[in-house]
Amino acid sequence: MALVVQKYGGSSLESADRIRSVAERIVETKNAGNDVVVVCSAMGDTTDELLDLAGQVNPDPPEREMDMLLTAGERISNALVAMAISKLDTEAWSFTGSQAGISTTAAHGDARIVEVSPTRVTEALDQGYIALVAGFQGVSKDTKDITTLGRGGSDMTAVALAAALKADECEIYSDVDGVYTADPRIVSDARKLDTVPYEEMLELAATGSKILHLRSVEYARRYGVPLRVRSSYSTKPGTLVAGSIEEIPVEQALITGVSHDKSEAKITVTDVPDYKGAAARIFRAVADANIDIDMVLQNASRTSSGVTDITFTLSIDNGPKAVAALEQIKDEAGFDAVLYDDHVGKVSLVGAGMRSHPGVTAKFCESLAESGINIEMINTSEIRISVLIRDTDVEDAVRAIHEAFDLGGDEEAVVYAGSGR
Amino acid sequence: MALVVQKYGGSSLESADRIRSVAERIVETKNAGNDVVVVCSAMGDTTDELLDLAGQVNPDPPEREMDMLLTAGERISNALVAMAISKLDTEAWSFTGSQAGISTTAAHGDARIVEVSPTRVTEALDQGYIALVAGFQGVSKDTKDITTLGRGGSDMTAVALAAALKADECEIYSDVDGVYTADPRIVSDARKLDTVPYEEMLELAATGSKILHLRSVEYARRYGVPLRVRSSYSTKPGTLVAGSIEEIPVEQALITGVSHDKSEAKITVTDVPDYKGAAARIFRAVADANIDIDMVLQNASRTSSGVTDITFTLSIDNGPKAVAALEQIKDEAGFDAVLYDDHVGKVSLVGAGMRSHPGVTAKFCESLAESGINIEMINTSEIRISVLIRDTDVEDAVRAIHEAFDLGGDEEAVVYAGSGR
Repeated sequence: MALVVQKYGGSSLESADRIRSVAERIVETKNAGNDVVVVCSAMGDTTDELLDLAGQVNPDPPEREMDMLLTAGERISNALVAMAISKLDTEAWSFTGSQAGISTTAAHGDARIVEVSPTRVTEALDQGYIALVAGFQGVSKDTKDITTLGRGGSDMTAVALAAALKADECEIYSDVDGVYTADPRIVSDARKLDTVPYEEMLELAATGSKILHLRSVEYARRYGVPLRVRSSYSTKPGTLVAGSIEEIPVEQALITGVSHDKSEAKITVTDVPDYKGAAARIFRAVADANIDIDMVLQNASRTSSGVTDITFTLSIDNGPKAVAALEQIKDEAGFDAVLYDDHVGKVSLVGAGMRSHPGVTAKFCESLAESGINIEMINTSEIRISVLIRDTDVEDAVRAIHEAFDLGGDEEAVVYAGSGR
Repeated sequence: MALVVQKYGGSSLESADRIRSVAERIVETKNAGNDVVVVCSAMGDTTDELLDLAGQVNPDPPEREMDMLLTAGERISNALVAMAISKLDTEAWSFTGSQAGISTTAAHGDARIVEVSPTRVTEALDQGYIALVAGFQGVSKDTKDITTLGRGGSDMTAVALAAALKADECEIYSDVDGVYTADPRIVSDARKLDTVPYEEMLELAATGSKILHLRSVEYARRYGVPLRVRSSYSTKPGTLVAGSIEEIPVEQALITGVSHDKSEAKITVTDVPDYKGAAARIFRAVADANIDIDMVLQNASRTSSGVTDITFTLSIDNGPKAVAALEQIKDEAGFDAVLYDDHVGKVSLVGAGMRSHPGVTAKFCESLAESGINIEMINTSEIRISVLIRDTDVEDAVRAIHEAFDLGGDEEAVVYAGSGR
């Protein structure tokens, strides 16, 4: 008898019909002899409707009250799923994040989980009940106020509960039936992966794969929680995210997949005086504005001129803020100008195999060259190569790389619209 | 500096506009130098929408989950009002029933308040915040599950908080601007009452006045909480419910108002054998079906026949259940038939004055006779006379009695549609 944690996203709960079929799947899992803990996101549009109402009464609402408001969404879906389960003559108890023992920091809107003590969940399971937990929410350890966990919050709730309960598996249900070698919307012969090691999933999530949020994969890796990405629209086994690349025999290590990201922008600071600490001054200004940067490129100082250009990428959302911060130190730092470009895209190739197979970078660049795609920046890790290119070239690049490394399969990829919180 | 508890019903919160104007009223009260605690019902249609969703997934949902679902409604309105207040540059904190220390019995859907320890509400007030509390909800002292307080639940929350906080006044806001001498929808010159003693308000609520629920008036009386019934659509002072009829000098005691109720049905059990305990057997059967009865009439046993008829009234909702319960004991109890009549109505006259003014009953009956209205049953208390008549005669009867006792005023009554939870 196994303990399974299942998380269902908003698209899996968008209507009474969907809720009924989710309930059937939960009951099947229970009847198969498992203990089942379920984490629900808010129903399809609930969150947007609540945000709209909030905007009508206050365009800049207090975060504490925003959390009080939004957490109602998961309570509603949670209770409705419990009712649908009970309709199938199976007992279920729903709990709020607070009742489930999810304690967090006091950072409203983006709280971090600091402790999970799911006493009531365990009691429910011991009594033979299915336990439902409202995702995305917790209670501040210090203030006892209701908090939300930010983007990917419901996944975090599921993974954290799975870790605390020592679950055998944590299933993340959405409208995508697994992790693919590339976005099936772009590459028609993209192949679904059966298993992906944590490190590779981290690289994929960090470079644009939307299926799992970085935070929950990191949490799952730290506590060794096996994650299974599945679709609530199919019964396929999906993709298992587990294990370390260290466990993979070098000769079996492969190139896993291609990810892409159009959410970044590029900033170039020109003619930076070539003295020690000039770059540091620039990155400090950006860091002080609380902005993360991704790729960085510093051109070799041009002989004689004694100046250099510094280029880096960041989330497009932070672009204007970063430009403003840099303009402020322009005279002090003595550079010439700040150039902003938000028509860039990033394409990455991920796979433990590149550690042992030389020439991957060469092949990667050749495939882009052959497609007439110009590389503006390049950045690598032990198991990843990323390049920055024109946003209009992204889809061609993904197809070219996927082709070049022969990642395709025969099976036609299944694609659905929408995606849960 | 006074401590005021304000309760706003669903009709006062049905839209973002209404929420904004409620927020303005709350802030005005705060700026007038008062500590303010606000209890919110769910927005206009929220509860119905949630009930509809529940019905779609399970026509007979578990009560525990129903409470988890419905309490989301008050959390939403509560957080939205807090946001609207913050828009007016005033600080407010919203709390769930549980956070506000409302502990109840475990009777889901109709829990009773067993303890109120509003520590966090007091802390908020001490820090100069307006405290908002989600109405209608609490947490079970024993199971720690979320509960709801049943009909009039938000009023109960407000009165219970006012009592625990020793508030100077508890204002109940709805779409009616006070307690009237009769329903202004029926009697055009109905007069708004400035003050009504608890005992009279209890009689009015028990005999059909919808403005306040019996439970909250009883609670307010027990703890001496002054209740003020006001409209959130006007700035009129409304009606103050406070004080005891014992405090009113006999010669000043008056006839206060006329109430009516069309929600009752009449059951007549015919030819009940005239032996000891026959009536008891019948009322026991009804009581065992957990049905409350109101008026009771037992005809004098007909000489020789040795049988009697027993007639009583009850809520129309319980009619079929009561008839079924009686049919079951028909042979055993030896009566002839169970007659059911749901075309009755009850009209009552309430006022401490009738204790000291003889002839009130006579005048009451004469006014009905003159209007050609037949009295089927009559029932009195020290300060009330109630009669059962045809439902089609109710409005004429209300007008006739209101006229006969000269209860009318000059001011035209203001009437709005709808009513809050």
